[in-house]
Amino acid sequence: MGGTKILAGVIDEDGNVLERVQIASPAASTEALLVGLDQVVTELLGPEIAAIGFGIPSSIDQRSGMVLGTVNLPLQGLCFRQRMHERFELPVGIDNDANVAAIAEWKAGAGRGANDLVMLTLGTGVGGGLILGGKPYRGSVGAGAELGHMVILQDGSPCYGNCTGHGHLEALTSGHAATLAAHEQFGPGVDARELVKRGKAGDESALALLLKIGESLGAAFGSLVNIFNPELIVIGGGFAAAGELILAPARERMTAESLPNMAELTRVVLAELGSDAGMIGAGFVAFEALENAEATL
Amino acid sequence: MGGTKILAGVIDEDGNVLERVQIASPAASTEALLVGLDQVVTELLGPEIAAIGFGIPSSIDQRSGMVLGTVNLPLQGLCFRQRMHERFELPVGIDNDANVAAIAEWKAGAGRGANDLVMLTLGTGVGGGLILGGKPYRGSVGAGAELGHMVILQDGSPCYGNCTGHGHLEALTSGHAATLAAHEQFGPGVDARELVKRGKAGDESALALLLKIGESLGAAFGSLVNIFNPELIVIGGGFAAAGELILAPARERMTAESLPNMAELTRVVLAELGSDAGMIGAGFVAFEALENAEATL
Repeated sequence: MGGTKILAGVIDEDGNVLERVQIASPAASTEALLVGLDQVVTELLGPEIAAIGFGIPSSIDQRSGMVLGTVNLPLQGLCFRQRMHERFELPVGIDNDANVAAIAEWKAGAGRGANDLVMLTLGTGVGGGLILGGKPYRGSVGAGAELGHMVILQDGSPCYGNCTGHGHLEALTSGHAATLAAHEQFGPGVDARELVKRGKAGDESALALLLKIGESLGAAFGSLVNIFNPELIVIGGGFAAAGELILAPARERMTAESLPNMAELTRVVLAELGSDAGMIGAGFVAFEALENAEATL
Repeated sequence: MGGTKILAGVIDEDGNVLERVQIASPAASTEALLVGLDQVVTELLGPEIAAIGFGIPSSIDQRSGMVLGTVNLPLQGLCFRQRMHERFELPVGIDNDANVAAIAEWKAGAGRGANDLVMLTLGTGVGGGLILGGKPYRGSVGAGAELGHMVILQDGSPCYGNCTGHGHLEALTSGHAATLAAHEQFGPGVDARELVKRGKAGDESALALLLKIGESLGAAFGSLVNIFNPELIVIGGGFAAAGELILAPARERMTAESLPNMAELTRVVLAELGSDAGMIGAGFVAFEALENAEATL
């Protein structure tokens, strides 16, 4: 589930997509959104469906299945998991959209086989996901892994939406941050996508902007290396299309910010599943819910 | 094991200290240090000793038991665990000094009963320890949880020792950082301890310096809340003596930097075990080594 579209599918245990449906997000009201979700799920339901999973652009309290905070969709305060369980009478798993993307890349994408993996999705915002010690880490109530909200530049530019922080990774390296920087440099006609295009064409001032974004990203990589000593940092999201224009300076900065001999223990790789990652990861979360339901029988 | 003293003891399974020995750290050479350690261990050895644990001020590769990087003691490159296992023919566990302190506070101190806990030790440097999902998290090779080396202020003041980073938590909020700031403000006669004393006496410029340090600490708290959604942040180390002079502004900043509804899920508390934490935690690491040895028999 995203702010603009909802992508749904039938997913098998290996993460293969057997069927798919996409609709525009009915974001006008909670009611409209739930009607839309019900229609999409009903369309895909069948005797072979054992459980349902949702990846939600929100922080979640996994104890109650309630949406704690959300930016793009009218879900705040909703006991989402219970609502869907009552509606469809199947085990339901829910998770943050960046967490499900991380789970998908870990089980079926760039992170296969890794025990300790950090994922950053550079989209409109910056999402985060953690696989630690061979399983997803979600925090004490399930609201953790919000890696886009690490402070990188204390007292830096304000973060977005209802976040009251400053100098967060999201405010420095997201697609939205890149668009704001491009507007300032080139005028309102140039967004993040056009900035990357100009960078790839060799435009010097575009390259300088992307370099600056890459350096902030690399400062975060260094923090993540020192905190997690991970095998992999996986980079996904639309703005990852900037590729080496941001990743080359990021790797250099990562080495400078990492403790001695630690940077070389972590590989930085691009995600493999593209915009399907969230849907596939939601499938894995459904299987997790199925396992939990079977364990409690 | 610290840069100035080595504290050793006989620890039971509940973390009680049954016997203790302290010596000045023989830091002149690796050989001298090992001779000192051998003497201390031999003094405490007896038929009731089942395993030995060491808390080392170093990053460690747990695969080989080798010291990867170290600041205050001549240990770099030493296969420390193997050396001690061969010398004493008992199971040997080793861990970073801040990790053992976190384990001690979790098992026998301020963090008892917590499932997800982050510890920061504000000493000469800033150490970190992580208990995640009910067990210590050490990273893919065991070199993680270096929370003092999160970037808080990109391109800020240089970090210390052999760390090439800038604006790390350690460079902003350690006892050493406080001493440097106090020198600048009050002259070479005022160190971190005297700064705290002056702050407690109501000295305005001392309070302003401590407020600034507390704000950086709070930025780190906000990051830790967003990353880990922990139940507890435990603060230890000598500079924690500054107490509310740094913790009050830190809590305020933590709330500002945390995502909506997340800061109230995390309590910030002071450590309880004082300078015994490292020794007690090393004891728990010894019991961990004993369990692992028994599991592989």
